[in-house]
Amino acid sequence: MDGNEAAARIAHRLSDVCAIYPITPASPMGEHADAWSTEGQVNLWGEVPHVIAMQSEAGAAGALHGALQKGALATTFTSSQGLLLMLPNMFKIAGELTPTVIHVAARTIATHALSIFGDHSDVMAARGTGWAMLCASSVQEAHDFALVAHAATLRTRVPFIHFFDGFRTSHELSKISPLDDDDLRALVSPGDVLDHRARGLTPERPVLRGSAQNPDVFFQAREAANPFYDAVPGEVSDVFDELAHRTGRRYRLVEYFGAPDAEHVIVVMGSGAGAVTEAVESANASGRKVGVAVIRLYRPFPSAALLDALPFTARRIAVLDRTKEPGAPADPLHLDVSLAIAEGWHGEPPLVTGGRYGLASKEFTAAHALSILDELAKPEPRRRFTVGIVDDVTWLSLPIDGASAPPSSAQQSVFFGLGSDGTVGANKASITIIGDQTDLWVQGYFVYDSKKSGSVTVSHLRFGPDPIRSTYLITEADFVACHQFALLRQMPVLDIARHGATVLLNSPYPISEVWDNLPMEVQSQVIDKALDVWTIEASSIAREAGLGGRINTVMQACFFALAGVIPRDEAIALIKESVSSTYARRGDAVVARNHAAIDRALKGLERLPVPPHASGSKPSGSMPSGSIHRMAAIPSDAPDFVRDVTARMIAGQGDLLPVSALPVDGTFPTGTARWEKRGLAERIPVWDADLCIDCGKCAIVCPHAAIRMKAFPESALVDAPAGFKTKAYGGKDLPARSRLTVQVAPDDCTGCGICVDVCPARSKSDSSHKSIDMLPAADHSA
Amino acid sequence: MDGNEAAARIAHRLSDVCAIYPITPASPMGEHADAWSTEGQVNLWGEVPHVIAMQSEAGAAGALHGALQKGALATTFTSSQGLLLMLPNMFKIAGELTPTVIHVAARTIATHALSIFGDHSDVMAARGTGWAMLCASSVQEAHDFALVAHAATLRTRVPFIHFFDGFRTSHELSKISPLDDDDLRALVSPGDVLDHRARGLTPERPVLRGSAQNPDVFFQAREAANPFYDAVPGEVSDVFDELAHRTGRRYRLVEYFGAPDAEHVIVVMGSGAGAVTEAVESANASGRKVGVAVIRLYRPFPSAALLDALPFTARRIAVLDRTKEPGAPADPLHLDVSLAIAEGWHGEPPLVTGGRYGLASKEFTAAHALSILDELAKPEPRRRFTVGIVDDVTWLSLPIDGASAPPSSAQQSVFFGLGSDGTVGANKASITIIGDQTDLWVQGYFVYDSKKSGSVTVSHLRFGPDPIRSTYLITEADFVACHQFALLRQMPVLDIARHGATVLLNSPYPISEVWDNLPMEVQSQVIDKALDVWTIEASSIAREAGLGGRINTVMQACFFALAGVIPRDEAIALIKESVSSTYARRGDAVVARNHAAIDRALKGLERLPVPPHASGSKPSGSMPSGSIHRMAAIPSDAPDFVRDVTARMIAGQGDLLPVSALPVDGTFPTGTARWEKRGLAERIPVWDADLCIDCGKCAIVCPHAAIRMKAFPESALVDAPAGFKTKAYGGKDLPARSRLTVQVAPDDCTGCGICVDVCPARSKSDSSHKSIDMLPAADHSA
Repeated sequence: MDGNEAAARIAHRLSDVCAIYPITPASPMGEHADAWSTEGQVNLWGEVPHVIAMQSEAGAAGALHGALQKGALATTFTSSQGLLLMLPNMFKIAGELTPTVIHVAARTIATHALSIFGDHSDVMAARGTGWAMLCASSVQEAHDFALVAHAATLRTRVPFIHFFDGFRTSHELSKISPLDDDDLRALVSPGDVLDHRARGLTPERPVLRGSAQNPDVFFQAREAANPFYDAVPGEVSDVFDELAHRTGRRYRLVEYFGAPDAEHVIVVMGSGAGAVTEAVESANASGRKVGVAVIRLYRPFPSAALLDALPFTARRIAVLDRTKEPGAPADPLHLDVSLAIAEGWHGEPPLVTGGRYGLASKEFTAAHALSILDELAKPEPRRRFTVGIVDDVTWLSLPIDGASAPPSSAQQSVFFGLGSDGTVGANKASITIIGDQTDLWVQGYFVYDSKKSGSVTVSHLRFGPDPIRSTYLITEADFVACHQFALLRQMPVLDIARHGATVLLNSPYPISEVWDNLPMEVQSQVIDKALDVWTIEASSIAREAGLGGRINTVMQACFFALAGVIPRDEAIALIKESVSSTYARRGDAVVARNHAAIDRALKGLERLPVPPHASGSKPSGSMPSGSIHRMAAIPSDAPDFVRDVTARMIAGQGDLLPVSALPVDGTFPTGTARWEKRGLAERIPVWDADLCIDCGKCAIVCPHAAIRMKAFPESALVDAPAGFKTKAYGGKDLPARSRLTVQVAPDDCTGCGICVDVCPARSKSDSSHKSIDMLPAADHSA
Repeated sequence: MDGNEAAARIAHRLSDVCAIYPITPASPMGEHADAWSTEGQVNLWGEVPHVIAMQSEAGAAGALHGALQKGALATTFTSSQGLLLMLPNMFKIAGELTPTVIHVAARTIATHALSIFGDHSDVMAARGTGWAMLCASSVQEAHDFALVAHAATLRTRVPFIHFFDGFRTSHELSKISPLDDDDLRALVSPGDVLDHRARGLTPERPVLRGSAQNPDVFFQAREAANPFYDAVPGEVSDVFDELAHRTGRRYRLVEYFGAPDAEHVIVVMGSGAGAVTEAVESANASGRKVGVAVIRLYRPFPSAALLDALPFTARRIAVLDRTKEPGAPADPLHLDVSLAIAEGWHGEPPLVTGGRYGLASKEFTAAHALSILDELAKPEPRRRFTVGIVDDVTWLSLPIDGASAPPSSAQQSVFFGLGSDGTVGANKASITIIGDQTDLWVQGYFVYDSKKSGSVTVSHLRFGPDPIRSTYLITEADFVACHQFALLRQMPVLDIARHGATVLLNSPYPISEVWDNLPMEVQSQVIDKALDVWTIEASSIAREAGLGGRINTVMQACFFALAGVIPRDEAIALIKESVSSTYARRGDAVVARNHAAIDRALKGLERLPVPPHASGSKPSGSMPSGSIHRMAAIPSDAPDFVRDVTARMIAGQGDLLPVSALPVDGTFPTGTARWEKRGLAERIPVWDADLCIDCGKCAIVCPHAAIRMKAFPESALVDAPAGFKTKAYGGKDLPARSRLTVQVAPDDCTGCGICVDVCPARSKSDSSHKSIDMLPAADHSA
């Protein structure tokens, strides 16, 4: 399951009330809770939790506060601005010492631009509210810490934020050991629950809350809660111990990995811990003495536990923050760790430096972590740095050229598809099959661009014999599948393939024509990296099997056939089983068509013969077959900003843009979308002027305005190119002998086919042929 | 003027748009702006600022954001939860590098209880938003820094929070040097304004803002703004310099006062700086070497300026925070200062400790600051402490017994009155007269309890030859006026009088009866402290002059007569002038009546002869005149909590309650108000059974439910005390020979007289006498 489901499963079982308002990437937690309650799933006490969707997160926080005051066990789920809207209630909930948990899929707060992606800016904005904060750095921890938070809040009366990294953890599919009801019962004491209920407002035992206090007593009352906060670290430790006793999974407030006599240590919180741990192991394996301290309980800040965890040999410590507070003397975790060390270190304290990483889900890899360890090893390490970007403005970024990622014991597979083509769904099914049917550890992570349907998706699957801590995208794939042939011309798909990797191409061409239709750059990579390329005509197989454009099961079958992780026959049986369950609702016919497609897939899978040289190297000019080049993302006559910035973002190289390339305040030039020609469609609509009845419906319905219709006088056709299609067009308002044309912009078309669906003009001889009809794009794009 | 007006005057003159939503204690800023625009007052560019009241602070922040995006100069004013509701927009406004200023009268955020009073919890909750933060610690600074903030935000494009302490600064009346339009023009550059306007959204130069960014570029874009933040401290310094050049008032980012070779230093921000500075001067005068560093620019945090300001001799530093973030390793300013010192100190860094003070306007005096300096001088100073309370739970509080406040060069006067009796208004007029007509520095501060009308007000006026930095209430008054004689029985009014102080009593008794009507405790204090007591029958003078219960001008005249700060004749002329202008709208008759009352006041003012001994010392028993005692606030049969907690709060001793006395979560027992008998009314309604027509209107209208009406059988009167008033009462539903009584609870009555207004039953012989009529409480309370 993913991190959201892992947390929500516990939250739902331990709550009477879930007050929800959806916000990416926390929405699935609320949606799960809602679905489970609708299905009648009960909580630990046999009641179906009451799920209330409010009008905003401010309302959800108010409903939470109200439910808690009545003595209900209540929770909510949120992210980003959603958490900001909860702050006023959160101050009160904490001030009133009310046990509850908010589960947060931590996400960027909108600043110069909105971002739906992950970092700690939201939870850090809540660190002054008086809530305890517990941070999970993996899907298993999101599950375990959800329980720890619910148990600890009832023991301490201090409310908890339980958070984990948005997308990286919330949306990562992972194989975890689920907690059962006995685990929950063992940790959540009935006495604590009854105490909470007894504090609920009731006319039978009236008390006064929510009053106003004057300067005479407010301060004293605010200090009266100190002992409750002082008790939290110990109580959380106790819950950790009890969890370890039952499950064998041992956690500490601050977890240290690495050399017991490390000189250089990284302190980090959240999913980045995985990448740093890999780097630490790799560095220590090569003879260095380094370590990593992972903060699990962030509030109350466990200064004593941190000092205990750090080896006394540490001389330099880099504290990593996944947020940015402009104007602060340091980012928050850096401030906290610095103080703890300044106050509590015995002897000469180590140098503490601070780095910022991973804002808005910017990749943070083991290679980045190694570059930090390298920096710590320099004579004068930087006191402030960023990692993962090139900062050519304030020069804070660390170079990462020198560091390379440590090798992985996992099989790493990457799949390129288009939104809605079924690629992601098939990969989720595949990783589930591998997780369920083998002893291997698995990880699935799915990158969408925010253009949604019709845009590129990249699926990253890892599986292997060791637990997978690589909390970042795959950079050296053992297996690369390209589910959309057109992508090969648009982006550097094979850059990600390691030497000797296996490549699977869904080709619109028979195998004999595939090589000649590969762009020069792709041919060169295949040869240089000695790639083992396999092709399948998945689209035609799917169409012939009656599946329309849905190639997912065909490609899934090919993946299992090539990956060899499960014996082929067994794998095929499992895929069919998975298909049967997925499509059961749509009827036997659909299931049967998919089964047929799977069988045909295995027959159609062929190894591509690779010639010794790329077909040609002539730079542009005449364009014979064999010197197709990867498309420039943007025409060369585009404005500077579009060429220098937008084009690189479109080409999937936005990560490489230096800081100086970006506007300082989020202001972009307008009208740049017109330079972005995605050329996604494998099949595009083509106009048959003879059949057209001038209704205009195709142009009206096109969701991307890629079909335009125009009437004009015949005289305008004087210089028209040969083959320019027009038809006669009459109308009261028009001059006599007017002409009409309907044009399709092939590179803007996404191939959705809605124009064909609405076209009412059919051929009399062939009723399946319409005036607007889909034909292979390759033949008509010119 | 007060701090709110001081800031609003600048904000209004430098804005096109003021988006407002009122919240205590910032409301007057918005109200001033609204009133000035309604009057047609223009901004620096000759336009009347557009004042927009929104539906909440979230709306005000949205309107602000929108106005700024259009290129308008825009501002808003807020406090507390209001600022929390602005946070989402604030992150965006800063991310988009939009110049603006939010003026904040800093106020407590509601936690276990709401508080309308002042501390830094609201502005600290905004410190991660990327706004610059400039803190004014006096009324003059609230005026000057408003300009500095508006000028600096336009120069730097970084938005500014300009804040000052709620109530302590926002509501303190002070004599300041106002900035004129030339000052504003000198600091606010037209070029900066035009640049801002040029960045406004317009169809003529379209740009794209408010977009979404993906992980590829968000982080780089976030770093692209770094140079703007790096520039802020320097730009603010420049503005400070330019202000000094024009006005002679020189400010620095971090201001140091005290010994250049200080060993012990306090770091503080806000109005507390005044108290600490007094303590530092006092300590240095007695041979110590101490200092104080006042933080003016809090964000971007001026680490370099702080290190420059601190003497290199400093060995121990106490950082004071006026907020509490439960679970943080230290409060925010403490964290920031610790980091700056840990990173930047040359040589062995000093010990840095952290203290919390002044939550929700808890008093913070020079004596408290001295106790902090004493703590720093101990062999092992506490690393964490609180000051101003007694913490008998976590034992964090410093003792303040040892330290006494330094003497003041100012004349200190304190006035006890009741809400709506005109005392506060008269004192505001008095301090204005002194400020305007003399070369003296003045300060006025007014304490209301939150029961509003009919509850106690205490006015604290200081005036003297030196600038007044005492940012706390008067504890040793040279002059004490008690405008309500009944308060002498209810609270320790004369505790505040220094030895030999002058006392002015508004007495309902002729001078010959005053002494015998003073409670024993008051008589003893008068004798022991050798107080010079004057009395005036202000209420009867006011009534006779046709002013009803409004005694303010009478008491004001007596104050000037006794204070001697301005020659008596001149003072009286000034009061009359002030009265003329205040009451001009109400017509010449009202003005004339007030003038007459003033003249009569001077004639009625008499010195009280003081016998050598208090009239008696017999403890209770029979209660002859002469042994009146101060009332117990609460009957001795009240529940424990009421006796131990509520009673002390009612008695004005809530400040002395230790932490252990307060509930940990804001939960109080209900029904305690019935134990609080305020006994405020000088005159109460008395029932004349003979006239009563049984209408019940008096009982219905009483806003304090202090009049109850009951019908009962005659038999119930068997054991009634002598003089128990009843009347015959018939009704279909009642047994024959029923009786009726109307009773007034004298100690719950506030003397408002609404019951008398509605009573329809007049005496036939004297039409001014009603069945319910007001009579002196003293005669009828028993």
